Amino acid sequence: MRNIVVTDPPRADLGQVAKLGEYGVATVHEAVGRSGYLGPRLRPVHLGAHISGVAVTVLCWPGDNLMVHTAVEQCRPGDILVITTTSPCTDGLLGELVATSLQARGVRGAVIDGGVRDVAELHDMGFPVWSAAVSAQGTVKAAPGAVNVPVVAGGQLIHPGDAIVADDDGVVCVPRAQVDRALGAARARVAAEEVTRAALRAGELSLDRSALREVLKRTGVHYVTAAEFARQTGG
Amino acid sequence: MRNIVVTDPPRADLGQVAKLGEYGVATVHEAVGRSGYLGPRLRPVHLGAHISGVAVTVLCWPGDNLMVHTAVEQCRPGDILVITTTSPCTDGLLGELVATSLQARGVRGAVIDGGVRDVAELHDMGFPVWSAAVSAQGTVKAAPGAVNVPVVAGGQLIHPGDAIVADDDGVVCVPRAQVDRALGAARARVAAEEVTRAALRAGELSLDRSALREVLKRTGVHYVTAAEFARQTGG
Amino acid sequence: MRNIVVTDPPRADLGQVAKLGEYGVATVHEAVGRSGYLGPRLRPVHLGAHISGVAVTVLCWPGDNLMVHTAVEQCRPGDILVITTTSPCTDGLLGELVATSLQARGVRGAVIDGGVRDVAELHDMGFPVWSAAVSAQGTVKAAPGAVNVPVVAGGQLIHPGDAIVADDDGVVCVPRAQVDRALGAARARVAAEEVTRAALRAGELSLDRSALREVLKRTGVHYVTAAEFARQTGG
Amino acid sequence: MRNIVVTDPPRADLGQVAKLGEYGVATVHEAVGRSGYLGPRLRPVHLGAHISGVAVTVLCWPGDNLMVHTAVEQCRPGDILVITTTSPCTDGLLGELVATSLQARGVRGAVIDGGVRDVAELHDMGFPVWSAAVSAQGTVKAAPGAVNVPVVAGGQLIHPGDAIVADDDGVVCVPRAQVDRALGAARARVAAEEVTRAALRAGELSLDRSALREVLKRTGVHYVTAAEFARQTGG
Amino acid sequence: MRNIVVTDPPRADLGQVAKLGEYGVATVHEAVGRSGYLGPRLRPVHLGAHISGVAVTVLCWPGDNLMVHTAVEQCRPGDILVITTTSPCTDGLLGELVATSLQARGVRGAVIDGGVRDVAELHDMGFPVWSAAVSAQGTVKAAPGAVNVPVVAGGQLIHPGDAIVADDDGVVCVPRAQVDRALGAARARVAAEEVTRAALRAGELSLDRSALREVLKRTGVHYVTAAEFARQTGG
Amino acid sequence: MRNIVVTDPPRADLGQVAKLGEYGVATVHEAVGRSGYLGPRLRPVHLGAHISGVAVTVLCWPGDNLMVHTAVEQCRPGDILVITTTSPCTDGLLGELVATSLQARGVRGAVIDGGVRDVAELHDMGFPVWSAAVSAQGTVKAAPGAVNVPVVAGGQLIHPGDAIVADDDGVVCVPRAQVDRALGAARARVAAEEVTRAALRAGELSLDRSALREVLKRTGVHYVTAAEFARQTGG
Repeated sequence: MRNIVVTDPPRADLGQVAKLGEYGVATVHEAVGRSGYLGPRLRPVHLGAHISGVAVTVLCWPGDNLMVHTAVEQCRPGDILVITTTSPCTDGLLGELVATSLQARGVRGAVIDGGVRDVAELHDMGFPVWSAAVSAQGTVKAAPGAVNVPVVAGGQLIHPGDAIVADDDGVVCVPRAQVDRALGAARARVAAEEVTRAALRAGELSLDRSALREVLKRTGVHYVTAAEFARQTGG
Repeated sequence: MRNIVVTDPPRADLGQVAKLGEYGVATVHEAVGRSGYLGPRLRPVHLGAHISGVAVTVLCWPGDNLMVHTAVEQCRPGDILVITTTSPCTDGLLGELVATSLQARGVRGAVIDGGVRDVAELHDMGFPVWSAAVSAQGTVKAAPGAVNVPVVAGGQLIHPGDAIVADDDGVVCVPRAQVDRALGAARARVAAEEVTRAALRAGELSLDRSALREVLKRTGVHYVTAAEFARQTGG
Repeated sequence: MRNIVVTDPPRADLGQVAKLGEYGVATVHEAVGRSGYLGPRLRPVHLGAHISGVAVTVLCWPGDNLMVHTAVEQCRPGDILVITTTSPCTDGLLGELVATSLQARGVRGAVIDGGVRDVAELHDMGFPVWSAAVSAQGTVKAAPGAVNVPVVAGGQLIHPGDAIVADDDGVVCVPRAQVDRALGAARARVAAEEVTRAALRAGELSLDRSALREVLKRTGVHYVTAAEFARQTGG
Repeated sequence: MRNIVVTDPPRADLGQVAKLGEYGVATVHEAVGRSGYLGPRLRPVHLGAHISGVAVTVLCWPGDNLMVHTAVEQCRPGDILVITTTSPCTDGLLGELVATSLQARGVRGAVIDGGVRDVAELHDMGFPVWSAAVSAQGTVKAAPGAVNVPVVAGGQLIHPGDAIVADDDGVVCVPRAQVDRALGAARARVAAEEVTRAALRAGELSLDRSALREVLKRTGVHYVTAAEFARQTGG
Repeated sequence: MRNIVVTDPPRADLGQVAKLGEYGVATVHEAVGRSGYLGPRLRPVHLGAHISGVAVTVLCWPGDNLMVHTAVEQCRPGDILVITTTSPCTDGLLGELVATSLQARGVRGAVIDGGVRDVAELHDMGFPVWSAAVSAQGTVKAAPGAVNVPVVAGGQLIHPGDAIVADDDGVVCVPRAQVDRALGAARARVAAEEVTRAALRAGELSLDRSALREVLKRTGVHYVTAAEFARQTGG
Repeated sequence: MRNIVVTDPPRADLGQVAKLGEYGVATVHEAVGRSGYLGPRLRPVHLGAHISGVAVTVLCWPGDNLMVHTAVEQCRPGDILVITTTSPCTDGLLGELVATSLQARGVRGAVIDGGVRDVAELHDMGFPVWSAAVSAQGTVKAAPGAVNVPVVAGGQLIHPGDAIVADDDGVVCVPRAQVDRALGAARARVAAEEVTRAALRAGELSLDRSALREVLKRTGVHYVTAAEFARQTGG
């Protein structure tokens, strides 16, 4: 599957992706059945960004960003570049110049299971990046790889054309075929949470709202006073 | 000690805790004899917060926040939730909904040896969190645990009712019985530092103020010129 | 080489260092042939600082900052303190008091392969630090070490008097003898990038500008449609 | 895709897998185009084992091995259990009792992106395990998951029925449809290496055999004497 | 609590500890309600050892083993030295000379949340060590600490006099007051496992023996054929 | 300093290096003033080897072992290959074929701040390796680097021609000019330790032999009974 560029992968509908992107990463992750989250290693360099778009995937050799340059040509407005490497690598696989080129083509940001550099410049130009590392270390352009093949980034399988949502909680990937369903589920979840939030603000307890006292009982959790606890533990 | 909720642990005096909380974490850590610091793994998600309060402790199963929900009911104004797990876990054990409930009860923030999610929302609502990870990954509510038993978080033993101070340097725990002594020591330390700071600003050296030249002499540190050093190392 | 303080190491020319410091860390790292970068472990605590200066090196025993205190006396305006330890250590080797003393002598910031504390205060006083950890944990002043000897920090050999540039991408060290050459190379690189940036903004591709299509051909990268790819992979 | 057990996934041909298993992990990884390797985090607890078989995949909740118990029923002679979790987990997901059950059904070993326990007993009974951790920490059996769905373990996508080879170098996965081709490529590679090995033993250099001197020339590597080098670097 | 040596902490009964030590770490950990396990970071340097004894606790400053030397005098036959540091440290806190002294006093081994050195010699002399690191790095003897105070090692609170069991699965601590109960529970567990093992060997499934099919049903796990699964996922 | 092969670096005297190699890594590290140790990250794959020799240094691009192949030609009997990369890399930079070539030239083993593969084969052929990782992941031969220039591996500066000693405690580097002095110091240390060992075996305490009771007194360590300690801590 290496050494290949796929030129026209089907993409999730940008309109639907935009609607999904109105929800946060945690909500979307829940909406697709608690899957697709790229984990706590991939963090925004600067807090405060929230984007959504469609994945263009890139598979690089460690220390080499030839395929990032190759991927630019495959990008369209609304895309998000998702970069990973064949083995762990913290080098700066993307910097301000490539981002300039990506931005010129309408790309909204990048997700990198690896490193990024020029982070101050990227922030100034409004090109948000989620990555596993920040590193000024440069790369060569010598070893082949792939663009728009399925990749694993952040422990998740990502197909080109999948929807990506990223915010301060990290990055979530929604398979193209599940975007509509995810959108529906996110809406329903947020509506339900609205009601719950009001109740919690008013002092109701999730123990009662979610029938968790039963779970406590079933699993043997019991309540004791501090005095009883001290007696039991000989304290 | 598992599967238990202690309902009324004695708490450190909130007035004294508030006074202690006027000092930074590094100062308090020094004031209690350089102990109680939860280490560099537990970081604020957003810089700039500084809180103090009294620990309500929570012990969860990994991937499960049943006991966080259970703990809400045990919280009072001035509390800080201290959450840990029985084995390492980065999942988002606390999010915006639970925080809403906690805030409604007067809880001032949370310390999590694990993950947190909805960090943008938590920041907006003024509920600061110190944690080992940020993760959108959701949890189940199925396995029992404990509330208000002694726990180890960040490598430190924490009893319910202990004082907690947290700022950009991390989190420190002061045992309930030591709050008064810590407060006195912190005051004395800060007063002494004020004098030292003025002297250092005026150009005095800590080498002289703290009699460190003697230590250098006793441990065999000697001064050489660059020329001598080059001769010695054959450079 | 331990237990020694070198009093007058030759320093890179501050005027030249200041000119070099107008460029970012990634540019300088490229300008010296992609070397000298202290890696992604050493991060600024607060984003947004950009400094340059001349290294005063410090080698400490873990858990002990005696030599940081010793180093203050050796500092001059334009210096940057570069602190490392003989074995891995996350403790707060430098805090606000020492920084006050350093600032009084004209030191511009610190680079620590270890921990720092009082980070809120350091930010307020305008003393930027790049470090491997933030930790309130205090240190003793008992074990000897060295000042202004060559050290390895962030995996890089650093001599006292070398030029240091630090920004949001991390820290780079330029050997004293290479500052002039680095400055020339940085200027040339930035000038060339200016032209490239304009071309990329206008929609040109680095694939074409950098003759990378040849590399793709030589290494066997080929283009396929999504339909062809699906056929090949039996999808 | 969660909460599901697939009962009869097509499996790679055991005869062909056995032939592939005569080769080491590094050879097989090369034979499939340098893909499918589960990385350096997954290590054998005891060195010296070398197995091959067909993947039965298991996706568990962290701290919960319900689905490992569920997977046993789906196992056949020649299978290898491949266990992963929905978020990082080091707990002992498999121990001697489950292994006894697996061995009774002809399972040859296990690959765990997580923890294992009873490792002395497992070694005694000849049930080899490759894992990310050894941990005595027990698990609950409360949260749902999946058996025989595609999973990501060690950063690689693994389908049930894929071929697995594991030795002291780690673990490699070969997609079911590629086993025949991998076998052919492994044979060819080993035959070629036999010739190379003899030549190298006789003193020939890979620089010459593989035409690497050209690469050195093209990329600008030049040879200097130590004296010249010292002159250049001012040493 | 620092700067103190407690001379005569009460110790668990050595006879009972020896009986407990006939069981493995995983069994003992289960017998005390799945607590007390020092986690996967603390590993035996050489596989194959299995010891039990009573904890003598040591708290060292990083890079300093003064208190290890101090602890020797407090040791008695049947003791196991449990060493930790006030902040993370990988240095070799114990080597062959100290072990010679410990062995002369009847100490059975050591558990170190830190580093150990001379590991070949330690293996030859039959002094097993579980540690977080192997490191030749030497330490000084300058900073104070404590012996036989409660410490946290491997994330667990350990009191002097507690029972320690260690094998290839790691290390578990059983509070002194719980040794008898743990022994009873371990016996019962092993007896029950004997029956289970025979059943599993005979082909019975834990799904049936442990009534797990009900859990699967309750949590919504369902069974599908591969053909159905392919239909559902559009594969 | 990149893109260069130094052909004839001066080497430490093999006879002296052999004598130094009769001592363990911990002893040699002490003999050179507690420096030169490559740290706990670099471990032997198989325990039990103990070698000494002279460093041939290699600097590779991550994911690329072109310079390892280039280095073979520069090797002589008694050499040890020391391999590092310009940024962190776990790939298998050396395997059985290259080791065959190295062994044919009299090379005694390898030290790799990176990965190694074919570890079973390397063990069978008696070619010991100390590395930061074991990984079957293959590399390309495309990017330039250096042979026999000074490198940093395991956090230590290593010059070609320096003496290397490696055993189960890890790896130590002794600068060429210090081998004689190190040998003398190692001999003296071992002789002194022989006397100490006998004394310790006879029951003497290092507290007394090394005058450590004074240090305890000076740093304020005091002795209390368990009863007193309980009173003080309110236990």
